[in-house]
Amino acid sequence: MINPFFKNHGPFKIKDLFKNINIDNSNILSDDTIQDIRDLANSSKNHLTFFHSKKYKKEASVTKASYCVTLKNLIEYLPNTCKIICVDNVLLTMAQITSKFFPDSINDDFDNTVKEINKINLKNNIQHGHNVLVGENVQIGNNCLIGHNTIIEKNVIIGANCSIGSNVIIRNTIIENNVTILDGCIIGKKGFGFLPNNQKNLRYPHIGIVYIGKNSEIGSGTTIDRGSMSNTVIGQNTFLDNQIHIAHNNKIGNNCIIAGQVGLAGSSVLGNNVMIGGQAGISGHLKIGSNVQIGGGSGVIKNIPDNSRVMGYPSKDLRQFLKENK
Amino acid sequence: MINPFFKNHGPFKIKDLFKNINIDNSNILSDDTIQDIRDLANSSKNHLTFFHSKKYKKEASVTKASYCVTLKNLIEYLPNTCKIICVDNVLLTMAQITSKFFPDSINDDFDNTVKEINKINLKNNIQHGHNVLVGENVQIGNNCLIGHNTIIEKNVIIGANCSIGSNVIIRNTIIENNVTILDGCIIGKKGFGFLPNNQKNLRYPHIGIVYIGKNSEIGSGTTIDRGSMSNTVIGQNTFLDNQIHIAHNNKIGNNCIIAGQVGLAGSSVLGNNVMIGGQAGISGHLKIGSNVQIGGGSGVIKNIPDNSRVMGYPSKDLRQFLKENK
Amino acid sequence: MINPFFKNHGPFKIKDLFKNINIDNSNILSDDTIQDIRDLANSSKNHLTFFHSKKYKKEASVTKASYCVTLKNLIEYLPNTCKIICVDNVLLTMAQITSKFFPDSINDDFDNTVKEINKINLKNNIQHGHNVLVGENVQIGNNCLIGHNTIIEKNVIIGANCSIGSNVIIRNTIIENNVTILDGCIIGKKGFGFLPNNQKNLRYPHIGIVYIGKNSEIGSGTTIDRGSMSNTVIGQNTFLDNQIHIAHNNKIGNNCIIAGQVGLAGSSVLGNNVMIGGQAGISGHLKIGSNVQIGGGSGVIKNIPDNSRVMGYPSKDLRQFLKENK
Repeated sequence: MINPFFKNHGPFKIKDLFKNINIDNSNILSDDTIQDIRDLANSSKNHLTFFHSKKYKKEASVTKASYCVTLKNLIEYLPNTCKIICVDNVLLTMAQITSKFFPDSINDDFDNTVKEINKINLKNNIQHGHNVLVGENVQIGNNCLIGHNTIIEKNVIIGANCSIGSNVIIRNTIIENNVTILDGCIIGKKGFGFLPNNQKNLRYPHIGIVYIGKNSEIGSGTTIDRGSMSNTVIGQNTFLDNQIHIAHNNKIGNNCIIAGQVGLAGSSVLGNNVMIGGQAGISGHLKIGSNVQIGGGSGVIKNIPDNSRVMGYPSKDLRQFLKENK
Repeated sequence: MINPFFKNHGPFKIKDLFKNINIDNSNILSDDTIQDIRDLANSSKNHLTFFHSKKYKKEASVTKASYCVTLKNLIEYLPNTCKIICVDNVLLTMAQITSKFFPDSINDDFDNTVKEINKINLKNNIQHGHNVLVGENVQIGNNCLIGHNTIIEKNVIIGANCSIGSNVIIRNTIIENNVTILDGCIIGKKGFGFLPNNQKNLRYPHIGIVYIGKNSEIGSGTTIDRGSMSNTVIGQNTFLDNQIHIAHNNKIGNNCIIAGQVGLAGSSVLGNNVMIGGQAGISGHLKIGSNVQIGGGSGVIKNIPDNSRVMGYPSKDLRQFLKENK
Repeated sequence: MINPFFKNHGPFKIKDLFKNINIDNSNILSDDTIQDIRDLANSSKNHLTFFHSKKYKKEASVTKASYCVTLKNLIEYLPNTCKIICVDNVLLTMAQITSKFFPDSINDDFDNTVKEINKINLKNNIQHGHNVLVGENVQIGNNCLIGHNTIIEKNVIIGANCSIGSNVIIRNTIIENNVTILDGCIIGKKGFGFLPNNQKNLRYPHIGIVYIGKNSEIGSGTTIDRGSMSNTVIGQNTFLDNQIHIAHNNKIGNNCIIAGQVGLAGSSVLGNNVMIGGQAGISGHLKIGSNVQIGGGSGVIKNIPDNSRVMGYPSKDLRQFLKENK
């Protein structure tokens, strides 16, 4: 999935990109050209990537990026084909680099490009409520419904036959056909990603989007943040209940069922046919297999293989949980 | 409680109702007339009911319905007075039947019947904010306050002396006198009830309403879904804090106090004077007695008798929980 | 922090204040004048305070209030300098007294003083969206952004360079410079404080405000209630994620990081540099030290000393939690 919304201000020469940034091995900086920045798995030639935690050593070992920003103690995991830029703080460096490539991604203030929907020229048959606002760079498919007071901010593509409720706010999002979004959802804002800094935290640019597959449903009052370096994805025919929070970079598969007040902390990958009971929480950077069932109230802090049923905090095999809690 | 909002398109002859539906014993289909569909407990003569889980065998054994849709292995629990229609998937069948009786209950898109409150003829003394919208079939009592941007969608009855905040959305709901609803609540939307189906889930029609008793209060950002086959009920003088989620069919008694971020999964019945601490979760289809106290963060997965104090996940006797966790 | 918003209708003579209130020792009532009501720690001469739980015996022992409303069994903890008014129900009495001093604090109905932002005279350079409403007694600093449909209700001071999102509702709140508030937040409403009473609960007046320090950020859909007898405080450079609930009287320090769906039950004090993982809950009336880290999903029911790392429900030392749950 490529993000079509934020204009890439590259390419940049590698030596220009790092002009005002402290790096350990400045001799590496050359006239080489960087076209884009990507995560480890999605990088290829002339891309710059980053590697900041051993958790990703597998992805690092096969990255096709030409350059990688990393820490001294992680160098050994990277392939020879990748030139290494060694820094003290990978994420701080990447925040600076990302801001150069995608300056549009930094600002999450309210969208002042919006106009009343009556005053813009939408080609398709769209039924809309009162006080609907639509921003720049928005496409809305045929036979869509857009409820009262809803704001389709800039950078949104909505497929055909979608039903968007009232008081909804969406930006930086692609929505496929036949998707239902209930009232009060907030979708596509930057995630809770920043670099803690005494006196004033530094916000991390979020260049990803939210992608919602066809036939899915998002319950009332749910928030879905867009990705930082990759996208936040809700699969096809996946149903989310009310008051769910999906943080940045999570990727949820198809045909999943997620009950009310569930929270996903960020950057986790869920397979298909996953069922999650109410109020369960999924920590960050986990892999949850397909056909997994997670009991209500569970706290998941480890990967879960396919076809497992778990419950508890921290979550464990469902049978064991029930046995221990008879 | 009868739902006054969705027009009953019956009666139907039993043989017409099941014309295009596969049933095991089609010889049962006759010219008998069905007036309405109800749950097991609320059915009487000329009603069609359904029975899909042993959990309800007690209610099944005394149902007064003339007909019941059920599974082969549940037949034995039904009384002789009830004619049985045997199917493979009870809920799928009932979704189809319900759509015939109550086609208005299927659609939860934004209400396009609303008008600006200034342009409609409300008889009572009502103080309202800016940009208030009111749908068809709405009654608002004397001395009510309706905040800014609030949408009273179709099918709402509000008693006297109610204070509704701003950014609230209500439909298919009866609210008694002296009720306070704080900002940002979403009340009366369909619940998270559907029949999972690869490629495209089938939404279950929700023919119930939300009923809120007098003197109650609903905190900011709370969502209360309407019932599927019965109503969702909030008792008298029951106070809900912020960001609570009450799913479909829950019935909460009088004088209850429910703290912030609590979630009720659906179809549970709570007695009077129940106190629930913040972030607690109550699983579906449970009976919680009167005068029960549930500690904050608890996960309740079993019935709780009257006058109990519980805490934990899963919840247990409060003293035991505190003893085990000294 | 003094609350500048609610007009103090005092001073009152002590004998007039308690004219229609049952007290044990009515001989104490004199012509002495009470200027204000305060909590134990913030009272001084000519103030009336209250003391209703042994939890506060330390603060009680050094209070500088001239008068204190309390229970018979708590008298011994108060200093000789403090005259004692003995009642059966401290909070009920204080609700009555507070209503006399601050009648404006009782009503949390929608603000009918608001006007469209275009029709009022704001001195500073403010960029705002569509349908923005502003109430009485509001100041907005230079270079602020106010999103669509946002309602700045009465009694709000916003510093310079703040970015307020869309669909936000704020009242009774002071916001310092460079604060970001994302979409859908509800800030400054009364807390969930009332005196349970069969048939009809008695709401407790909330005379506190919400105070948000400079450089802080509040995530989408978050609710922050104002204080009852003191203020609710969010420190400087403290970042809150989405769907967080901060109940009344909580005081959060500087440079804290609080992840999504966390809930604080009320009246707790958190130090600086506190990190709280997603969905954690903090019970009421606790002291959480500085540099504390609380794992996601934790339920905190005891005080936590500085520099601790905890996890679990109830929370315990992080290492022990991980050891027990390998």
